[in-house]
Amino acid sequence: MSDLLIRPASRTDIPAIVAMLADDPLGAQRESPGDPAPYLAAFTRLAEDPNQHLVVAERDGRAVGTLQLTLVPGLSRRGATRSIIEAVRIHADERGSGLGTRLVEWAVEESRRHGCLLVQLTSDASRTDAHHFYERLGFEASHVGFKRAL
Amino acid sequence: MSDLLIRPASRTDIPAIVAMLADDPLGAQRESPGDPAPYLAAFTRLAEDPNQHLVVAERDGRAVGTLQLTLVPGLSRRGATRSIIEAVRIHADERGSGLGTRLVEWAVEESRRHGCLLVQLTSDASRTDAHHFYERLGFEASHVGFKRAL
Repeated sequence: MSDLLIRPASRTDIPAIVAMLADDPLGAQRESPGDPAPYLAAFTRLAEDPNQHLVVAERDGRAVGTLQLTLVPGLSRRGATRSIIEAVRIHADERGSGLGTRLVEWAVEESRRHGCLLVQLTSDASRTDAHHFYERLGFEASHVGFKRAL
Repeated sequence: MSDLLIRPASRTDIPAIVAMLADDPLGAQRESPGDPAPYLAAFTRLAEDPNQHLVVAERDGRAVGTLQLTLVPGLSRRGATRSIIEAVRIHADERGSGLGTRLVEWAVEESRRHGCLLVQLTSDASRTDAHHFYERLGFEASHVGFKRAL
């Protein structure tokens, strides 16, 4: 396989990212790849916030993976900044290739570079394969994740 | 009881907030209330980020509760902005008074006002009372929360 490049997402990556978000048992219910307007508006909000790092993994000129890393300053843990990983997706053609590990390790290194003391994420209770994946990468399933839709 | 005011935290609230963070079974191991420097530095980072809302609940001129609300734009769920609640603490004198509910409902309303479609939080697996509290407030324990210390 040819080299992989992990780089900031640009506006032209949005269709490929949305396609990956939608190609997922949970995402299929939630996304609307045929209607780009809300995604373009959200990309503007992301681009304006220096604590948001939306990236794509590119191979042969094609976006084959994505994740969003958010830096969150805070007072707790002696004023620790933490990071949050969201929306990790790997293109169907690349699953099992180690790309998920590369992307998450990129996020961990980037978090370290920004002085974070903690990286956290939540994973839907139904995604048991993902849970084993994160445990293999040194994450501890120490918390319960709560959500309330508005 | 006299009226409660929920307002943005100021620099002079830091000692009271840190005392609440430390007066907690988990926080006692993590905080250093006698050393304000890292907290002051973190407060500067919070104040510079318009997506961070660190608040205190004040009664009779005294900070008796705190939480941090973070707004997180994103592409997933049709470009939904979500919010994250962190570092909820209620002063020992006020526990059981309904103040936790008031603070969390404030955060939910503030999230709505900013157009969020989802509010989320994680709670340490050991805090079973907190889990029941969030479930009563309409949060669903749908996710597993992973953390990796750096």
